[in-house]
Amino acid sequence: MQKSVELTNRSINAIRFLSADAVQKANSGHPGLPMGMAAVAYSIWTRHMLHNPANPEWPDRDRFVLSGGHGSMLLYSLLYLTGYNLSLDELRNFRQWGSLTPGHPEYGLTPGVETTTGPLGQGFATGVGMAIAEASLAAHYNRPGHEIVDHYVYAIVTDGDLMEGVASEAASLAGHLKLGKLIYFYDDNRISIEGSTELAFTEDRGKRFEAYQWHVQNVDGLDLDAVDKAVEAAKADPRPSLIICRTTIGYGLPNRAGTAKAHGEPAGEEEIAGARLALGWDYQPFEVPEDVLEHFRAVRERGEKLEAQWRKRFEAYRKAFQAEAAEMERRLKGELPADWEKLLPSFPADPKGMATRASSGKVINAIAGALPELMGGSADLAPSTNTLVDGGGNFQPGQYDGRNLHFGVREHGMGAVVNGMAAHKGFIPYGATFLVFSDYMRPAVRISALSHFHSIWIFTHDSIGLGEDGPTHQPVEHLAALRAIPQLVTLRPADANEVSAAWKVAIKRQGPTALALTRQAVPTIDRSIYAPASGLEKGAYVLADLGAIRPQIVLMASGSEVALILEAGSRLAAEGVGVRVVSFPSWELFEEQDMAYQNSVLLPAVTARIAVEAGVSQGWWRWVGQYGRVIGVNKFGASAPAKIVFQKYGFTVENILAQANQMIGRLDE
Amino acid sequence: MQKSVELTNRSINAIRFLSADAVQKANSGHPGLPMGMAAVAYSIWTRHMLHNPANPEWPDRDRFVLSGGHGSMLLYSLLYLTGYNLSLDELRNFRQWGSLTPGHPEYGLTPGVETTTGPLGQGFATGVGMAIAEASLAAHYNRPGHEIVDHYVYAIVTDGDLMEGVASEAASLAGHLKLGKLIYFYDDNRISIEGSTELAFTEDRGKRFEAYQWHVQNVDGLDLDAVDKAVEAAKADPRPSLIICRTTIGYGLPNRAGTAKAHGEPAGEEEIAGARLALGWDYQPFEVPEDVLEHFRAVRERGEKLEAQWRKRFEAYRKAFQAEAAEMERRLKGELPADWEKLLPSFPADPKGMATRASSGKVINAIAGALPELMGGSADLAPSTNTLVDGGGNFQPGQYDGRNLHFGVREHGMGAVVNGMAAHKGFIPYGATFLVFSDYMRPAVRISALSHFHSIWIFTHDSIGLGEDGPTHQPVEHLAALRAIPQLVTLRPADANEVSAAWKVAIKRQGPTALALTRQAVPTIDRSIYAPASGLEKGAYVLADLGAIRPQIVLMASGSEVALILEAGSRLAAEGVGVRVVSFPSWELFEEQDMAYQNSVLLPAVTARIAVEAGVSQGWWRWVGQYGRVIGVNKFGASAPAKIVFQKYGFTVENILAQANQMIGRLDE
Repeated sequence: MQKSVELTNRSINAIRFLSADAVQKANSGHPGLPMGMAAVAYSIWTRHMLHNPANPEWPDRDRFVLSGGHGSMLLYSLLYLTGYNLSLDELRNFRQWGSLTPGHPEYGLTPGVETTTGPLGQGFATGVGMAIAEASLAAHYNRPGHEIVDHYVYAIVTDGDLMEGVASEAASLAGHLKLGKLIYFYDDNRISIEGSTELAFTEDRGKRFEAYQWHVQNVDGLDLDAVDKAVEAAKADPRPSLIICRTTIGYGLPNRAGTAKAHGEPAGEEEIAGARLALGWDYQPFEVPEDVLEHFRAVRERGEKLEAQWRKRFEAYRKAFQAEAAEMERRLKGELPADWEKLLPSFPADPKGMATRASSGKVINAIAGALPELMGGSADLAPSTNTLVDGGGNFQPGQYDGRNLHFGVREHGMGAVVNGMAAHKGFIPYGATFLVFSDYMRPAVRISALSHFHSIWIFTHDSIGLGEDGPTHQPVEHLAALRAIPQLVTLRPADANEVSAAWKVAIKRQGPTALALTRQAVPTIDRSIYAPASGLEKGAYVLADLGAIRPQIVLMASGSEVALILEAGSRLAAEGVGVRVVSFPSWELFEEQDMAYQNSVLLPAVTARIAVEAGVSQGWWRWVGQYGRVIGVNKFGASAPAKIVFQKYGFTVENILAQANQMIGRLDE
Repeated sequence: MQKSVELTNRSINAIRFLSADAVQKANSGHPGLPMGMAAVAYSIWTRHMLHNPANPEWPDRDRFVLSGGHGSMLLYSLLYLTGYNLSLDELRNFRQWGSLTPGHPEYGLTPGVETTTGPLGQGFATGVGMAIAEASLAAHYNRPGHEIVDHYVYAIVTDGDLMEGVASEAASLAGHLKLGKLIYFYDDNRISIEGSTELAFTEDRGKRFEAYQWHVQNVDGLDLDAVDKAVEAAKADPRPSLIICRTTIGYGLPNRAGTAKAHGEPAGEEEIAGARLALGWDYQPFEVPEDVLEHFRAVRERGEKLEAQWRKRFEAYRKAFQAEAAEMERRLKGELPADWEKLLPSFPADPKGMATRASSGKVINAIAGALPELMGGSADLAPSTNTLVDGGGNFQPGQYDGRNLHFGVREHGMGAVVNGMAAHKGFIPYGATFLVFSDYMRPAVRISALSHFHSIWIFTHDSIGLGEDGPTHQPVEHLAALRAIPQLVTLRPADANEVSAAWKVAIKRQGPTALALTRQAVPTIDRSIYAPASGLEKGAYVLADLGAIRPQIVLMASGSEVALILEAGSRLAAEGVGVRVVSFPSWELFEEQDMAYQNSVLLPAVTARIAVEAGVSQGWWRWVGQYGRVIGVNKFGASAPAKIVFQKYGFTVENILAQANQMIGRLDE
């Protein structure tokens, strides 16, 4: 017993010093969290969390989220010690170019990192999405005697996480949904960057989480027995659990422990030497005693056994429920069923047409049957965003087989939850709100792009065309702002058939897509006259060259403005002008094409090029060139019926004609 | 008494039907909130709130915030009825082009609208900023016997507001700060757009607010006596108050009351007729019985008296405390003290230089003494954002004279609080965080732009140059995203002297400014050789034409990259090339200049133009032209020391030279 306690303590110290020494070597990083939470993390990783370091992709593993991503060395230390495919050299290269150990954990880069964290609150809320994914898969695939989906989500969360609104939103939702498999450990160290949490954070955290319908416990973060008991109690309680762990930031550092200094800078050689003395750690930097390593690596042995047992159980399940097993495996691999694309509707030409949010709703419902992995909801705007799956049922406590999520008015929480479902795997999740409110969830959209999550963002009411609700609800800068995010594809389809093509892209792409959809009706373009909507897949395509002669002018537009340039183009052509009309739903997809294609669409030799989009003109100059024009909205919108706002803001065929005629010299400026 | 009750009831019904009828006439809007909360609003506006409809600018008025801005007709009805300068015709023109009654309340447009609301949660958090402003002014200017600053902030908040993270952040902060003058009425109608709040919002709201250290009461939203008593109790309690009002959405509508249908669409003629019957309202649309109008207009009479009494008290104060009175008046008018600009530091040339966040900290401290209205803080990053006013003290409960705010890790709440301080007047408030986290507070930044608030946003660590923290913390798309917001000026100064000039712009401008500042040191440019930093005020300016001959190439950059193009330009010039070097800190200020100035800087005839900025290249094509180049960051950053990331991403003098030489034909591509 004595020996075992001693080994345990040294194992915990191994986490502390790997972390502090790596931060010291990098001369950059955050030693405070790893040193303070090492004991709790040790307990989670070696005693409670069922995972297999030999296979970080084992589907039924428990998930671990380090929401305080600044404590990344805690996670890297645990990954190395328990035997994930992360070498000691990588720890030595913490925060260096090309290492697998960046400043904050990055999904897809480091084996065993379940999601990207660092921007506070994201990990907290992303974990909620993972628990939703688990509950949904369990409800759909488990059968009596076959609990093939049954895992927990563990997280370490910090003061900063609890202060961020996104965590509040997700916590309230998780409590409502009774996600009992969430077990969160709160590193209650009472220190923030500016000093004591007494400066700004004196609320009663436990009471707040009880109000959210969580199970709340308090433990000493150094007391392993207490932590163990708390985890058992958490598992026994049907609510999500917050285990408040009283800790000391930078535990062991003789002068900096318990101070803001311990948080975000290397402790310094002297402080670390002092900690070595205080904690009795006689080893060199990056030296892990053999018995400690062996002790940790037993987790890997156990994990391999656990996974083998699960695989055996899964084979029994497969025998009994062949179709279910195959479907679940397909979903977890991220593969699409054969022939699903055939379900994508095509829409007949219609001069009246329909709103693209409405055609999007039809597409969702056309493919939903074949794609059970397609699951999501709206931030309390489902009737407006057209995102309900008919007959899909609501995902509610005790009804985890429902596929319509109700996020409440919580856009940011929704974003992170959707990311968590994507990170979990088995889902192509979506979240919907008005385009103007994409601002509320931008940090989550960014994480989806950085992590290549297969999240789909549905943003309706995509311009001043939403009308009476006015400038607070009319997006203007949002298309530009979304296009600015690397690795995110933003699509603004022009009509119902482009919507169908856009969904095809969004479902097939291995990464996030944002769909911008209209509130107002747009004509369904007659594809027997104009080019097929599949051109959307290339980002921009020639709808038609109008007029008898070769193009003198290029008109390009996205979304609801395509109908305007088609009409303007036809009128110009009738007057003998050669006009090219380009539908331009996605800059990013167009940028992926080779220069030859790009030039074949834009005709750089034609200097008279006009872009028409009901948003800021920023960025369009790249496509219209130095002598081009952009008809955009470079101010805020206005409250009035949509048609009047469009007219007042210059989105009329007449204005396009006037601008075009000026450019080709048929009209004085 | 009987008669008085009858008049009260008819007055409340006047609010209900003005609202429902205006929504019906516009065929657009939200009747549910005004009909459900009419009685509570009546109580606030006629019995408790001390305001003067004849002068919406009376400094010591109580503030009113309709956080559920979709219920705008409630506010417009009250403004009309109590005699603000808003005509009945404006109510008839609800949501029409050019009216003063847009879909959601807009600050600066409609007399008596204290802040722009509609995006949920903003109003809630903005009100907290107003209460901070009040407490600060009171602490600074009140003297024993001279309580010249003493007013409350009343707000109506909704389910949606309470679900939004930004409100959670602000509520926690308000409780911590013991802002007892906040009295918020929560419209607890149990209905959201998707249906019952049971779908997603089942937390214990009262308990949650108690955890935030608020005083919580429950009342029946139709019981005026209960509301009155609750307000008295709220005033007596030192904590902020939440009065939970149980209401029925769309009260009076025979079929839609209490349903989601009542929320966001016109009730329909039939429903409104039914409500007229049910509530005994015998009047035509927009008809207000004379006695009811007279009853409401008594508020105006009382308000004029209240203000007159206050003005008398203020004159007594002025006699006793001349300097304080003059300063307070100056601040409330938004005027700057004479000669404050002379305090703006100028920095000597220094090849080593300093980080622009550091020079910004020096500027703040140089001008803070002369500008007591300059007040703000950071979202728990003060040591990194260099935003502390030395010796300014902390704004804390009982220490409301402190001028350093500690927002906690609550960027979004910070943004809205800063806006509230600006809306209150008497302040030039600022909020600071890392540029990457501007995403967390974008909705508040947008409100500041839409409302022309004098909010200053300080965003440090403004590029991949922040180094080791990696892509989660390295902004890439954020400059583009901020520049996309109309009416916001984004400034990225190149050195310490441009920082000084940037602060001059930010302080003088009647609207919001975002400052993007470096983590890393940048040289202080030798202004005896290069053009003065005052050129920043024009957005872009020629630092120098280098080389003996006229420019063959134009190099432009912002912020930390200006030093790179200066060096590259010098090297090219030494080789006989004519080079123009342009510092380009602000697109918006440059766009305000006439075309002649713009052309004189950019030299459109020179096709070889390169822009260098450590952010996405989006938008730069406008300035470099069709044949130009942009050295930008069109992917996410990487975790490594800053110098290495800069080098790997092509931000080196060598890369600029190579690109420049290719463009002017001195080097093959």
